[in-house]
Amino acid sequence: MARIVAKFGGTSVADTARIERAADKIAAEVARGHEVAVVVSAMSGVTNQLVEYCRQISPGHDAREYDAVVASGEQVTAGLMAIALQKRGVAARSWMGWQVPLRTDDVHGKARILDIDTTRMSDSMRAKEVPVLAGFQGVTDEQRISTLGRGGSDTTGVALASALKADRCDIYTDVDGVYTTDPRIVPEARKINKISYEEMLELASLGAKVLQVRSVEMAFKQNMPVQVLSSFDDAIGSDLPGTLVTREEDIMEKSVVNGVAYSKDDAKITLAGVPDVPGVAAKLFGPLADANVNVDMIVQNVSLDGKSTDMTFTVPLGELDRAKDVLSKIKEFKGVKVLTDTQIAKVSVVGIGMRSHAGVALTMFKALAERGINIYVISTSEIKISVIISKEYLELAVRALHTAYGLDKTA
Amino acid sequence: MARIVAKFGGTSVADTARIERAADKIAAEVARGHEVAVVVSAMSGVTNQLVEYCRQISPGHDAREYDAVVASGEQVTAGLMAIALQKRGVAARSWMGWQVPLRTDDVHGKARILDIDTTRMSDSMRAKEVPVLAGFQGVTDEQRISTLGRGGSDTTGVALASALKADRCDIYTDVDGVYTTDPRIVPEARKINKISYEEMLELASLGAKVLQVRSVEMAFKQNMPVQVLSSFDDAIGSDLPGTLVTREEDIMEKSVVNGVAYSKDDAKITLAGVPDVPGVAAKLFGPLADANVNVDMIVQNVSLDGKSTDMTFTVPLGELDRAKDVLSKIKEFKGVKVLTDTQIAKVSVVGIGMRSHAGVALTMFKALAERGINIYVISTSEIKISVIISKEYLELAVRALHTAYGLDKTA
Repeated sequence: MARIVAKFGGTSVADTARIERAADKIAAEVARGHEVAVVVSAMSGVTNQLVEYCRQISPGHDAREYDAVVASGEQVTAGLMAIALQKRGVAARSWMGWQVPLRTDDVHGKARILDIDTTRMSDSMRAKEVPVLAGFQGVTDEQRISTLGRGGSDTTGVALASALKADRCDIYTDVDGVYTTDPRIVPEARKINKISYEEMLELASLGAKVLQVRSVEMAFKQNMPVQVLSSFDDAIGSDLPGTLVTREEDIMEKSVVNGVAYSKDDAKITLAGVPDVPGVAAKLFGPLADANVNVDMIVQNVSLDGKSTDMTFTVPLGELDRAKDVLSKIKEFKGVKVLTDTQIAKVSVVGIGMRSHAGVALTMFKALAERGINIYVISTSEIKISVIISKEYLELAVRALHTAYGLDKTA
Repeated sequence: MARIVAKFGGTSVADTARIERAADKIAAEVARGHEVAVVVSAMSGVTNQLVEYCRQISPGHDAREYDAVVASGEQVTAGLMAIALQKRGVAARSWMGWQVPLRTDDVHGKARILDIDTTRMSDSMRAKEVPVLAGFQGVTDEQRISTLGRGGSDTTGVALASALKADRCDIYTDVDGVYTTDPRIVPEARKINKISYEEMLELASLGAKVLQVRSVEMAFKQNMPVQVLSSFDDAIGSDLPGTLVTREEDIMEKSVVNGVAYSKDDAKITLAGVPDVPGVAAKLFGPLADANVNVDMIVQNVSLDGKSTDMTFTVPLGELDRAKDVLSKIKEFKGVKVLTDTQIAKVSVVGIGMRSHAGVALTMFKALAERGINIYVISTSEIKISVIISKEYLELAVRALHTAYGLDKTA
């Protein structure tokens, strides 16, 4: 008997038939004796429609009113899910953020959860009622409706699980787990049964868009096991059919590399002949930050002549023009040559086992060299090695690395 | 300078373009120096969609969850209207029922307003902010969302006007006022400029579906002038372009008859040979009420032989079978002959001037007789005379009465 928070994403509650299917899963958990609390997203497409209404009237709309408008989507699903559960003989009731209350700060549109007062909800659960919380929303101290930003329902799920001291948070979505890499590129990609919070964070921020990064960060901090699983399969959460994101200590078999991630939405900027004097990095990255340019990988080589050096960094493709504009205005960089390249891709291998294994990087460099793939930039962290290569080699590189680290499915 | 509550119905906020048009009207009122509070319905079609979702999952859904689901429609419009007003330089904010709070009883799905605490809203209005209240919804003492039943936004408008001690409640809709009769039948029908609460109640309950009956009853009780006007015309409420529903005392020119109403959704039941003994009416109408049959006109003739009498009454067409079923089970009515007629129509003339004028009924009977229209049943109240006639004569009768009472538009 466990206490479980089950969160259903937009595609899992896309219409009334899918809401009923999700309700079947919850009813099955309850029948097994588990105590369940539910968090729901808006029916898929609804939030986009509501955002579009706001935008049509005024692109610079008041974020407080935007929140009142878009939070209504989850309200609808919460009520419908409660009705579907009641139909199955499961006592249930909907909860809006303000009813709990789930308090947030007043940064409307991307509010952060301050705390969840579970007093009333716990009373209801003791009376064997399944609470169905509208995800993505909360209430400010001013009693205004707030929202957590896109994908915020995952965060609501993890936060509620933590507040209710649940044993696990199940995130039902349209994929059956986290894969060793993108199965569209590597058909041999395997579903990962268990993965650590740290690895999941690296994979998520690298483009494996399964779980919202903020919710993983919160799960990590709160030490709350999170399972990603499909609402379209027959299995339910207690069968553990998905990928469990949990503490490193709870993972027996630690792979050296657990996944290969990639991203092709970056551009590379190289500054040749940057004066090699203290403070030059700040002169560069300060103005870029001020202009809201997200700089990712940064590599600076040792200066050979003691006078000037080369610097390379990556930025999102969509921010390249802004970055170039900023660079052209820095007077210290007058004589610096700016080279840009948009035909690049980033490939990363991630694994906690890396910490205790030597030669992990070597395997990567060898695998790429054997296929004649040139590496432009290398950047490493404790559990990740990333390289920048030419975009045309992306699929080849991902497949080569997946095989090189022994991740391919055995037939 | 007046304080006005402006309520916009579903067709007046059907899409973002119409919401903007409604916002133009409010901005114009504010520019004239008026203090305005707004009440909005859901965008037309939205409530039906939400009701349909609930029905799809479970026809016998929990009314509390139904309320949480359907109340979301007005929440969206309130937020969008606030955004549209802000775009026009008018400070504004949305209010949900629970934020005000607008307290209701806990009869979910058709709750009644208990009170509106305007403390916080008044503070906001003093700061020159236009409040935009989501209509149709409130909050119970249990902190659950409640709804007032279909058309409830009119009631919200009048209740808010009363709580804010407003000078007038403007109900913007898709017709430009209340007409002397249905213009589809009588092209000469005129818009009524002023009408008393009593007359409006008789016209509304008789089928002139412009204002929800409950909202008129509330306006009557609270003595709140209500204007029905079109949101598609250019004029704004302060121009008084619509029909003002107000106190009899405030209407200078009292017409003997102000309107001709009709209904063709009734069936007539005649019981021939009912025993003429005390208590027989209770034996008849008690079981009908228990079976939720709405009995309307009732006529009982004097017994000529002292033993038995005839009784006639009307019921909604859709309830005829239920009524017949009830009648067949009353043992005291064993020998009574039950005659039913579904080919009937009810025509009524309504006017407060009737009270002080003799001969009003005579005009009606003469006008109908001249066209060879037979009257089956007559029923009169202080400000209304209703007759039941054969359905095929309906249009002819309405036109004849409209002319007979001098209601035709003069060219």
